[in-house]
Amino acid sequence: MMRVVSLDEIKTVLPKVDLISDIETGFASYSRGEVVVPPVGEMHFESPPGDVHIKYGYINNDEIYVIKIASGFFQNTDMGLPNGNGMMLVFNQKTGQPIAILQDEAYLTDVRTAVAGAICAKYISPKKVDGIGIVGTGVQAKMQLEYLKDIIDCRKAIVWGRSEASLLKYVADMKDSEFDIAITQNIDDVVDGCQLIVTCTPAERPLISRVNPGTHITAMGSDTLSKQELDSSILLEADLVVADSKSQCEIRGEIHQAIKSDRFSMDTVVELGEIINGDKEGRTSEKQITVADLTGVAVQDIQISKAVLEHL
Amino acid sequence: MMRVVSLDEIKTVLPKVDLISDIETGFASYSRGEVVVPPVGEMHFESPPGDVHIKYGYINNDEIYVIKIASGFFQNTDMGLPNGNGMMLVFNQKTGQPIAILQDEAYLTDVRTAVAGAICAKYISPKKVDGIGIVGTGVQAKMQLEYLKDIIDCRKAIVWGRSEASLLKYVADMKDSEFDIAITQNIDDVVDGCQLIVTCTPAERPLISRVNPGTHITAMGSDTLSKQELDSSILLEADLVVADSKSQCEIRGEIHQAIKSDRFSMDTVVELGEIINGDKEGRTSEKQITVADLTGVAVQDIQISKAVLEHL
Repeated sequence: MMRVVSLDEIKTVLPKVDLISDIETGFASYSRGEVVVPPVGEMHFESPPGDVHIKYGYINNDEIYVIKIASGFFQNTDMGLPNGNGMMLVFNQKTGQPIAILQDEAYLTDVRTAVAGAICAKYISPKKVDGIGIVGTGVQAKMQLEYLKDIIDCRKAIVWGRSEASLLKYVADMKDSEFDIAITQNIDDVVDGCQLIVTCTPAERPLISRVNPGTHITAMGSDTLSKQELDSSILLEADLVVADSKSQCEIRGEIHQAIKSDRFSMDTVVELGEIINGDKEGRTSEKQITVADLTGVAVQDIQISKAVLEHL
Repeated sequence: MMRVVSLDEIKTVLPKVDLISDIETGFASYSRGEVVVPPVGEMHFESPPGDVHIKYGYINNDEIYVIKIASGFFQNTDMGLPNGNGMMLVFNQKTGQPIAILQDEAYLTDVRTAVAGAICAKYISPKKVDGIGIVGTGVQAKMQLEYLKDIIDCRKAIVWGRSEASLLKYVADMKDSEFDIAITQNIDDVVDGCQLIVTCTPAERPLISRVNPGTHITAMGSDTLSKQELDSSILLEADLVVADSKSQCEIRGEIHQAIKSDRFSMDTVVELGEIINGDKEGRTSEKQITVADLTGVAVQDIQISKAVLEHL
């Protein structure tokens, strides 16, 4: 019998789950070729503007397969609705029978995305971080910072936003966090004040155009053909460029944009799971510039769905 | 608030719906370019063998989008489970919010597939049908015949199956139908005794290799890269080859197989909606040989989901 799990139930269960470990394991399996992840399904809407992503797949010889639906309709806020929505559907891999619908309203997608950011910081960030830069003021801008807490000692954040109103709202929303938060509308403050920067916007033009030695940037906003947060010169200059999924990053996100500029080569890209597995090196010196490009991989959805179901 | 609709509720509602009309309207919109249907999502499993299809899309300026999941695990029967399963998910096109989960267990996929077969018969079958040929003995083999009742006067059916046991079960299951059912394990009995033939198997090699003038064949079993029920020579010989979706049939099903044989051209194929719209001619003489290749299009799922929700 299929179980319908509400967002409240999901939120009750999540603190019991070691998400970093579960999702690391997922990336590791993915990069060992043990996970089948077909191309992302997509729908785009114009009026009002919206995107829907369908991510799905399975780990070979596992019990389940997962189909995850996540939408973003960016004018929902004007109607007092959250921008994101969706659900994760879990099926029996031997029979196709539905096991559970996790009605997460996109919350698990937000969590697994923030966890991937923390995993990037764990493996690739410089050790010495005096400031964490957050580019953007939305849901991920808050969650990325929260999930970095267990990985990074630094409690000083500089947050960039386009509008003062959204920055002030960010500070108010994060008032109970452990972070000392400075706000800015000048991206240079982030670039020059932070050694770990996370970009979390739906920008379609580069927001960051230069980077200092000894910096790691996790770019998690750009997950489509057209989105871009980093100037491609940053990827060319970087000592290490990491993809959550090489096959996805080749056709969407920052790496895709850098390839389109005709100078960047996929050959230099390392997969996050390869670093977790120990097959490839992550950061090898404090002075390196590193970039991680996250597009979101179905194996994250598989792992977080399984973890929630196991702990219910 | 998302509504979860059970199969029982769905079955209660369906008799109130004019499915032929609703799904015809859908095919017509599709062929006028009013429907966005991204490529079908697919997962294949080896052990035990299974297929999952994700079909999704929306009609421009409609209220909803639909994501349909349907699985077939052909060894389920051995465990006393139905082979097919799945659900249809209906979302608000303006906000991404889920409206309903139709837990149809693949029933609505079966129904909308059978209705498409009836629509093909309505527009393309010869007028004079002395026998309806059914190739296969599974769920669709029964439903196709049931849904032809409203379209075709003939009540004589010849059913082909590989095994006597499955044929006898078919006859037993259909004992309350209005049809006089003859069974055979010789495909020639179907080819020579029927002017309207529907193939409903998961065959990966042609079952029918010749066809008489004055015959219409609806091939609905082959919906993947590898399935095939008709020898490609039949499509080459046919006076009219109809696709439910030209873009899908180019890469899966009978038309795909005939193109692979290097002789058949997509240019000659007419879309079912074009005939419904009156933009293209269907059958123009009783003596013609016609073939309809059905791969299943998301617009059918959209239309049947909407119809169920409207009548709940």
